[in-house]
Amino acid sequence: MNGAQALIRTLVDAGVDVCFANPGTSEMHFVAALDDVPDMRAVLTLFEGVATGAADGYARMAGRPAATLLHLGPGMGNGLANLHNARRGRTPMVNVVGDHARSHKRLDAPLESDIDSVAGTFSGWVRRSLAPEDVAGDAVEAVAAASSAPGSISTLILPADVSWEDGAEVAGPLPVRPAPRVAPSVVEEVAAVLALGEPTVLFLGGDVMDADGQLAAAQVAAGTGARLMSETFPARTTRGAGLPDVPRLPYPPEMAIASLAGTKHLVLAGATSPVHFFGYPDVPGHPVPEDCAVHVLSAPGEDGVAALRALAQAAAPDATPDVLEASRPELPTGELTPRAMAAVVGALLPEDAILVDEALTSGVGLTELTSGAPRHDWLCLTGGAIGDGLPMALGAAIACPGRPVIGIQADGSAMYTISALWSYAREQADITTIICDNGSYAILQHELSRVGAASDGKRAGQLLDLGGPGLDFVALANGMGVPATRATTAEELADQLRRALAEPGPHLIDAVLAG
Amino acid sequence: MNGAQALIRTLVDAGVDVCFANPGTSEMHFVAALDDVPDMRAVLTLFEGVATGAADGYARMAGRPAATLLHLGPGMGNGLANLHNARRGRTPMVNVVGDHARSHKRLDAPLESDIDSVAGTFSGWVRRSLAPEDVAGDAVEAVAAASSAPGSISTLILPADVSWEDGAEVAGPLPVRPAPRVAPSVVEEVAAVLALGEPTVLFLGGDVMDADGQLAAAQVAAGTGARLMSETFPARTTRGAGLPDVPRLPYPPEMAIASLAGTKHLVLAGATSPVHFFGYPDVPGHPVPEDCAVHVLSAPGEDGVAALRALAQAAAPDATPDVLEASRPELPTGELTPRAMAAVVGALLPEDAILVDEALTSGVGLTELTSGAPRHDWLCLTGGAIGDGLPMALGAAIACPGRPVIGIQADGSAMYTISALWSYAREQADITTIICDNGSYAILQHELSRVGAASDGKRAGQLLDLGGPGLDFVALANGMGVPATRATTAEELADQLRRALAEPGPHLIDAVLAG
Repeated sequence: MNGAQALIRTLVDAGVDVCFANPGTSEMHFVAALDDVPDMRAVLTLFEGVATGAADGYARMAGRPAATLLHLGPGMGNGLANLHNARRGRTPMVNVVGDHARSHKRLDAPLESDIDSVAGTFSGWVRRSLAPEDVAGDAVEAVAAASSAPGSISTLILPADVSWEDGAEVAGPLPVRPAPRVAPSVVEEVAAVLALGEPTVLFLGGDVMDADGQLAAAQVAAGTGARLMSETFPARTTRGAGLPDVPRLPYPPEMAIASLAGTKHLVLAGATSPVHFFGYPDVPGHPVPEDCAVHVLSAPGEDGVAALRALAQAAAPDATPDVLEASRPELPTGELTPRAMAAVVGALLPEDAILVDEALTSGVGLTELTSGAPRHDWLCLTGGAIGDGLPMALGAAIACPGRPVIGIQADGSAMYTISALWSYAREQADITTIICDNGSYAILQHELSRVGAASDGKRAGQLLDLGGPGLDFVALANGMGVPATRATTAEELADQLRRALAEPGPHLIDAVLAG
Repeated sequence: MNGAQALIRTLVDAGVDVCFANPGTSEMHFVAALDDVPDMRAVLTLFEGVATGAADGYARMAGRPAATLLHLGPGMGNGLANLHNARRGRTPMVNVVGDHARSHKRLDAPLESDIDSVAGTFSGWVRRSLAPEDVAGDAVEAVAAASSAPGSISTLILPADVSWEDGAEVAGPLPVRPAPRVAPSVVEEVAAVLALGEPTVLFLGGDVMDADGQLAAAQVAAGTGARLMSETFPARTTRGAGLPDVPRLPYPPEMAIASLAGTKHLVLAGATSPVHFFGYPDVPGHPVPEDCAVHVLSAPGEDGVAALRALAQAAAPDATPDVLEASRPELPTGELTPRAMAAVVGALLPEDAILVDEALTSGVGLTELTSGAPRHDWLCLTGGAIGDGLPMALGAAIACPGRPVIGIQADGSAMYTISALWSYAREQADITTIICDNGSYAILQHELSRVGAASDGKRAGQLLDLGGPGLDFVALANGMGVPATRATTAEELADQLRRALAEPGPHLIDAVLAG
């Protein structure tokens, strides 16, 4: 058995049975070995950023890592932005990065580059397999490291000859470190803080954004008067009717500061203490008031749901959580504003949907107008590196073949990884993509004025404008085999979304937004 | 004057007056400052790999660096593959990578990542500007480092507040280190080797691939019997009638080994000693025979043209270089094979064209059938990271607005940076792109069999196949504002190429290849 065969069998045995791939020459034995291990599903992407973003979306939904197959340093480089998002989302992932054969490594061939250094910047675990005999053992360590709480990225660098040489054997999976319990004394301390009755925010993120975590938090809130809030971009949130309303910390610094004003205690459960995305002139770097004490109930990687349940038991044993009733917005008519788009989504969101949100500025009203919709999961852009939305939707669809995936995707951001659409078509993934087509990097137009820069310059404005020529997303989707339509009114969007959801496979709707 | 304003003015004064940009929030002051410095031309790209590849193509043709503007670590990551190619091509380039404000850096905000470590893997010069007062001085060092022979990449990391704060001043350019002369004793030693009359190859690359270098090398060859050969993928080669025939070292290892078999002396001028792109089972890592002595006439970064002239004077003072006569293939008819495509290009290549070659396996016959065409320049994929072709053509067109650019582009490779087409349309760049549409990663199908992997597996084959669905490059081009046609016969390609060349602005031809 050669190294590649042992690697793939070992990964499958360890529960990693999907690989998002964009291979090159140094990965040819891995590719060849796929025919020996039919339990490994390989999904071809045309660009590595699609592979890494899909692995991110996959793991958020499946709760276990996918593998990626990347071609040397440049292939890993193309995947870097979405590896950044995955790192920030604490997504478990196992990268297999092919490298030159060991004998070739020293020759400084054209594709030679410092894979190890770059991998170190986003990985929690990095290893270069040195011999076929080592590959399987390295692979099970990679999977265990990635899967242990909190999730992280493991990168296995696989020299071509380690892949093609014989002498490898399959290894059995290693135990995954479960999330440790929070000490009872910590829960007691937080309960004591809540008992003070001072203005308190229970700040949620990470693992507590599932239904159980939010319900436990809502019980605490109901019994103590603490407010609930979540991090701005949680990796995965379960939402909808029957769950509590957990507003997100707003993205704009001024709004974030206002939302926490007067808070005396910030209790963190699964989240870290919030900071603004960017620094701005004359604005503090984070929204937490100076006289607010920050308490850690559970850090990322600890069992936050158990901690919240213990807290509920201690601080609010008899309280009943407030939850949202089932409600949907009415279907809007007329002008297709961002809010009208959000209302159409809220009105039509199917049961058990997965919503992938990279709407950025066009997402106004989207969380509000979907909050009473049937139960669904919501994936956010965790690391701020735009271009994760289209790939994440692919991964989510592969992870959950029975669930409809809806991607709400900003137009400028879509172009970073647009070839994801081809993989949608090849896999016939059940994804409906709504492009928020405003013809600009609207978020940067906001930012240009926010940073205090003169925003009326013509040349500056041209760098934030996606017109001249406009992007025709219907043509782009059709060019990659995805059926597509264009909506210019709320009625058209509703009609097209209804039809897309009724039919399996990928669809794209170019929502031309007004205002 | 704030840091951004000083930086842009300083870059322009140092001769860097084109910036390929994909900005984000942390670069907003740079964007705003563009309106203060109209001599800086900013070219918007929708993906950073287009920006870095365009800067690569620009500098190869302009002979001086362009700047890029990249958004933090993820933006730089998206540019990494083409930065790799630029490093391998010894392309001068100045990256400006925005980062968080200094006060924000320590907060581990969502977009925080280790920019410095990643930049170090491809840059010859890296610096983080620490204060507005430093920016201009850092910038002139960056330009001088990038421009000094051989070219290299400088990366200036620019914290947002260093950009927005006042107190900066413009700095004057620093001297660029010229390529040092090769010592006369080295020339004499090589002349003595040539005088032995043993089988010798004069192996050319880098700076000697211009007309003067090749003519001097051909004089040496004519007078000594040495054979001429060039590196496989020179960054820029001047070619055509009136210049010598300099065959390239073939890419496939077996062919490369055969082409150097029997060689006793390999004399390097501007090139390094060749190695194969990849290691393969039971194949040596390089094509140089074991009993062949390698002599360095000029290393990359030395003045190779002067060295070759001195060598010609010493070894072959009275010889006349053999040069190619003007000749063009006849326009082919019928089936559109790769060779027919090459013949069409050879028959119609306009005077003074720039040919950007990322044809990969579809490039069969392309160099041969264009060798007697009117004088032109030829840009190759230097580092093996596919996806440089479309961006390089953009940069070449910006550098040489009066010259027609023709991109011969493999289909799979095109998808890595397909959004370059949008920038073509926005800039109305005079680029004709011929997509070599064979519906597969054909190079990997070759490689799969070459590495000895079983190539008949269905699942392996699916990972190298771009069908299901096929990519419709006409739709993709139209979706980004580039007029496009499809050619399925040699006549159609000729007709469409003639028309595209006759009309300014971008055109794309989807050449559906047979066989």
